[in-house]
Parts: sequence; structure tokens; C-alpha cells
Amino acid sequence: MKENFLVGQSGGPSPVINASLYGIIDEAQKTGSAVYGMINGIEGFLDGHFMDTAELYRSPSFRMLPNTPSSYLGSCRYKLPKDLNSEVYRKVFNRFDELKIGTFIYIGGNDSMDTVNKLNCYARASGIDIKIIGVPKTIDNDLMLTDHTPGFGSAAKYVACSMRELTLDVDAYFKPSIVIVEVMGRHAGWLTAAASLAPKYADDNPCLIYLPELTFSVEKFLDDINTKLKEKTSVIVAISEGIRLANGRLLCEDENTAVDAFGHKSLSGSAKILERISKDKFAVKCRAIELSLLQRSSAVHASGVDVEEAVLAGRFGVQKALDGNSGKMVAFQRKKGAKYEIECALEDVGVICNMEKTIPHDWIIKDGTFVSKEYADYAAPLLEGEPSLVYEHGLPMFCYRDRR
Amino acid sequence: MKENFLVGQSGGPSPVINASLYGIIDEAQKTGSAVYGMINGIEGFLDGHFMDTAELYRSPSFRMLPNTPSSYLGSCRYKLPKDLNSEVYRKVFNRFDELKIGTFIYIGGNDSMDTVNKLNCYARASGIDIKIIGVPKTIDNDLMLTDHTPGFGSAAKYVACSMRELTLDVDAYFKPSIVIVEVMGRHAGWLTAAASLAPKYADDNPCLIYLPELTFSVEKFLDDINTKLKEKTSVIVAISEGIRLANGRLLCEDENTAVDAFGHKSLSGSAKILERISKDKFAVKCRAIELSLLQRSSAVHASGVDVEEAVLAGRFGVQKALDGNSGKMVAFQRKKGAKYEIECALEDVGVICNMEKTIPHDWIIKDGTFVSKEYADYAAPLLEGEPSLVYEHGLPMFCYRDRR
Repeated sequence: MKENFLVGQSGGPSPVINASLYGIIDEAQKTGSAVYGMINGIEGFLDGHFMDTAELYRSPSFRMLPNTPSSYLGSCRYKLPKDLNSEVYRKVFNRFDELKIGTFIYIGGNDSMDTVNKLNCYARASGIDIKIIGVPKTIDNDLMLTDHTPGFGSAAKYVACSMRELTLDVDAYFKPSIVIVEVMGRHAGWLTAAASLAPKYADDNPCLIYLPELTFSVEKFLDDINTKLKEKTSVIVAISEGIRLANGRLLCEDENTAVDAFGHKSLSGSAKILERISKDKFAVKCRAIELSLLQRSSAVHASGVDVEEAVLAGRFGVQKALDGNSGKMVAFQRKKGAKYEIECALEDVGVICNMEKTIPHDWIIKDGTFVSKEYADYAAPLLEGEPSLVYEHGLPMFCYRDRR
Repeated sequence: MKENFLVGQSGGPSPVINASLYGIIDEAQKTGSAVYGMINGIEGFLDGHFMDTAELYRSPSFRMLPNTPSSYLGSCRYKLPKDLNSEVYRKVFNRFDELKIGTFIYIGGNDSMDTVNKLNCYARASGIDIKIIGVPKTIDNDLMLTDHTPGFGSAAKYVACSMRELTLDVDAYFKPSIVIVEVMGRHAGWLTAAASLAPKYADDNPCLIYLPELTFSVEKFLDDINTKLKEKTSVIVAISEGIRLANGRLLCEDENTAVDAFGHKSLSGSAKILERISKDKFAVKCRAIELSLLQRSSAVHASGVDVEEAVLAGRFGVQKALDGNSGKMVAFQRKKGAKYEIECALEDVGVICNMEKTIPHDWIIKDGTFVSKEYADYAAPLLEGEPSLVYEHGLPMFCYRDRR
């Protein structure tokens, strides 16, 4: 009987993707069946790379897995072909068969849910009895049909906390300055908008936030800065890496046109471009700061709520697969009421994959330069709670995969 | 009688400069005399900006001051003239006189110790009875006659922790990549060398570290990377912003030649330059990351030892001024023995100011690409302990100066 489990991680790392992995392994190991992990996602698995998680499950370091950032099993960016007759599907399912896989759980974002959907379609079309479930993960928070995604709360906490710390740093000087902070987010501004949670008093920094949901105008940006420079000494701005000009092109498009396996442009440099433009326009100190990879990999900034929910999503995925579900993604539904509470649900992965959820336009206020209280009410509960890190010589300890 | 206290902060912010401020205010308030704070250091004070710290001392937020990053009182970069007959000295001492200042304590790095030294020389030459003491602060750790400086341990913790997290992130992919991380440090590599504390297993990243103590060669750098790329998939490199070529010029010198009030070149961009050079040479993904301002302003990464010692240094400065000392800087002496312990001492600020302490060359190993165990033995104890932050809605609370 095919009763074994297989789990994989895909896409960009997050501070809590391993928390979901922990939930999946812990829940699946209870069944007594073998629990395998793909090394480097579906791409590594196709090349025969996987591990048995039994040793990890029994090791003392397993308890550090939920607080270990990045992907313990390794990740990939690999898109399955549209043609279900492609050889690659037979290869994947042959490997499933060899390992007697009854349940496959894939943790990831939009593109990973596309993989879940295609594998599920192939299995159904071929009459193969395997349950395939997606567990969401993305700091971008851009998945449909779920209140939010694991990873977002921690990354948002990183952004909000860093903006608050940067503000204190920059405000220490009394000479005018402009600081432009670039935050991840290709098409959705959820993460950049977390900069709005940093201010502590009226007119505190950051005072301008630019999201990819609206068209970006360099002229308006300079006007906005000019207005703020009349009101305050330092002007701190948060911009999304994905801000686009009226011609539809990314602000950074001319500078960097590398493309990844999904056809995504490798984005960076918008803040640097705006730094140069601001330097030319205003006779003040200008600095661009890219939050870069740390916003998605800082365990120290993980949200306790996020870690807990990520574990829960993993467990729920295993339980629902055992109940016979397939082609579904674990989703969060927020309960009504003042107290923040969620419950898990299953949603159709075919609807979710390749779609994007952006910030409602009526949450974007002040002529496109900030977000409303609705955003804060929505996002703030997801940042609550501190992670239970284990420290050794002042540095956090993590759970490492043996790479020999 | 001139018995009041005046305290100021100067130079680049650090995660614990406010911990020293806390120690100074708390200790000085006990005497019952007034304790004033310069707003924006000596420069702001010359313009008449100062505050009475009595209200702060009595407020509940005072207990959050030691864990508040950056300079609560504001900072400046202002160099006093060499000519003691300059009008500026009379102006400063007139203001001291108006406020009946008997003790002035200045928290800062090299340049701030220069200010302490010059003011002390003026006071002694003019027969003015005022005690002037320096309390060290610099993430660069480049002050002479002290085992280390407050601020270094926290910033080193930020660097080591971030390198460990970045390594996990980058290692999630199995395609070759080069990541170049730029760390602060004009002439001394103490902070960049903290990257050496991150690796957890043999051959872990970061695997190459370049310090400003040695001449930097782009050709050797590319050779070093080439060798590492044959051994491992991802190569993570830490470089100091201040690395210099054989011709004596900074690697980044052509790109950015802005100069601050001390004649320091505004440095940034070495990692970006090496990213471009590496991209041209190797057909792999290359990424430059500047740790930027967060390495000196992250309260979340503060070291418990560093916070505690910074408070201690402040208290000790007040006590020693009350004992009649002047023209001295508080220094740390490490006790002999396996257990890490320090005691405070006073050193002559005239010797310390404008000098720099760099890493001993025999601590730099592996053909100039790493640091030895001596560095780890020296630095690791300074990272110990986590800060006692107060959180609200998932974000750290800080102590804010009323800026109305």
C-alpha cells in the first residue's frame, strides 16, 4: 500500500517555511509511515535527491527546526510544463511510486501551487491514487483565498522593526536627509506597507510609502519629498522593489534585466535610482538602503504568531490529506470579532495558483503615499509574539541538514 | 558652586550609546544636582540646544533607554578648531558657566575623544574648574587603550547573526552563486571580522573575509573566489567598506567621493563594484548586500553584555569625575583567566584621540582571507546575552525624546 509521505519546499526562503516543514514531519511521523523530504524541491527530486526524515525527527535539533530560517530541504525555482504528456510527469510519478508515496505536500508560493495543481491534474487524469496538498509560504502575502500567508507576518515584522530602528538612527542628525528603503514585493505591496506600522508619533518616519499597486511617477515622488522636506528634517521613504512607471516598465528595468526560470525579472536597484535622482534634485544627504535577503531570512525577527500558524498549516495539510483531500491548499480564515483568531480551511489550488492578491486600492491613502488604518488592523496581529530561539555564545542556533 | 552635569552624544549612532547615557543620567541624578543633555552634541549645544533630563529620569520610559538604539540626545559630526584661542571655546565655556556645569561627559568615538581632549586642554590652560570625561562608543572598536568599545559587541552580533542567516538563505539553492556582504569599518576590520563567528561546520559560509588592514587586490579576490567555487556551491564573502588597493585608494573611491565634516570620505559601494567584476568573470549569480545602517542601529540584535557594560562605563565616568578626574576616557580592562570579566579604568584621552587600533596582522590568516581563533576568543564573549526589550504589537518599544 502506498502510505508514505513526501514533503518539499520551493521558491524563495522565508523565516517560517521550516516551521511548516516541522508541522508536516511531526504530524506525518505519528502515522508510523516513512516521511521523505525532497532535496531542492521538485527539481532536485527529479534528479533523485531526497532524504528520509526519521533521523531528523529523532534528533534533538528537530525542535530548533521551526525557528530555523530558509529552506531546510533546499529550494528550487522550477516550472512544470503545461503539457501533461511531457516525460517529466512520468518521471516524477515513477519516483513517487518507488517510494510508495501516498501523500505529497509542497510548501511554497504561487509558483509552487502551480506545481501542486499540475501534479494533481496529472494524478487525477491518470487515475493515480495520491493525495497532493499545498501549504502556503510567501513573505509577499499575495496568495488568493487565504487571509494571509505564513512568512508574511515575520517579514512584515522585520520591515516594521527595521524602519523604526532606521528612523531613530537617521533622526539622530539634525541636517536634512533623504533615506529610501527598498522592500521586496514584485506586484503586491503587502510587505512594503508594513513600514506604516513603524511610526510612533504624529509625523514620525517613514512618512512616504510607495506600493506597486499604483503607477509610480518620479515627478510626483520628487514633489512629495519636497513637501516633506519643508515639514521635517529627515524624510524616510519605503518603496517596493516592483514600482512601475506609467509606461508599464519597472523603475529598475533598464538597470537589471536578468530573468529567472519563471520569467520573473530579477529586481533591485529602484532605491539606488531614486537616490541618484534625489541627489541631483535636492542639496541634501541621500541614501538608498536595500533590505535585501535579510527581510526573508531573519529568524531573530520572526513573529511568534507566524511560527505557530506555519506549524499549524503543516499539520492541517497532513491531516486533510489523510482524510482523502487532494488538489487543495491549506488556507487561513480569520474569525470575526475584536480578538485575532484564525482557523484552517482547504481551498482549491487550481484557483489560487498563478493568481495574485494585491492591497485594496481604497486602503492606499494620502495621494498614494501611505496606507490606511484598515491595513494596520489587518497586519498588526500577524507580528505578535517573539520567537523561542536557542542561543549559543550570543548567536541563534539553527537546525542544519547534513550536506556531506 | 558649579556642580551640575552635562552629557552629550556624538558621532555615528550605536545600539548601546543610549545605555551609556542611561548610566550617566542615573548615576548623576543620584547626586541631586541638575543633569543636562546637549541636543545634537557640541554643535547643537553651541546653538543653545540642551535639555534638563529630570523629566526623562522620572518617566516610565527611562527604563527603555538602555535598549533604545541611536542617540537619544541627537548627534553631530563637529570638529573643534586646533587653535584654543578660537571664539568657539569661549562660547562653549560661557554656556558651561551659565548652566553651572561642574562635569561634562561626552559619549563617542575617536573624533568625540578629540573634542574631550581639546575642551580639557582649554579648561586646564584657562584655569577653569570643570571635569571633562569621555565615555567610549564605537561599533568600529578602533579605540586604543581599551580592551574593546561599547557598541562593538552588538554590531558584531548583528554581523555574525546576519551572516549565519544569509548563509542559510543562499545555501537553499543548489545553483552556484557569489554573495558579497559589505560591513562598516573605515580603517579597522574588527566588525567585518565578526563574520568569522557565523560558520557552524567545516567549510561553512562565509568562507572569505577581506579586511582593511591588508591591501586588497581584485585579481587575488577573483582567484580566491575561483578556488572556492570549485569546492562549494555558494561562496559568501564579507568585505570591509574600507578595503584599499595597492595604490592606496579605496576600492570605492572613484564611485563616491562625498566628504564629511572630518574629511572622511563617505564610503559605500565596494560590494557593488565587486559584484559587477564577479559577474563579468564568473557565469554565476552574484549579489552585493550592504548591511548599511541596520548594523549600527538594530536593538533586536544588541548583546546583553554590551548593554550592561555600556551602562557601567557611563556610571564609572560619573563616579570618576566626582573623584576629581578630568581629560580621561573610561576604558575596559579584561581580566586574565578563562572566564570573561572586565573592570573599568581611566586612560588619558589625549593619547587615545585620533589614534586607531586595528586587528593584529598575525590574527589574519589563510592568505589574508580569514581571521584566526585568537579573534574568536577575543570577540565571542562580547556577543553574549540577549537584550531585555519591551514589545508592543510585536514591535520593540523605545524611549523617544519629545521633539515638539
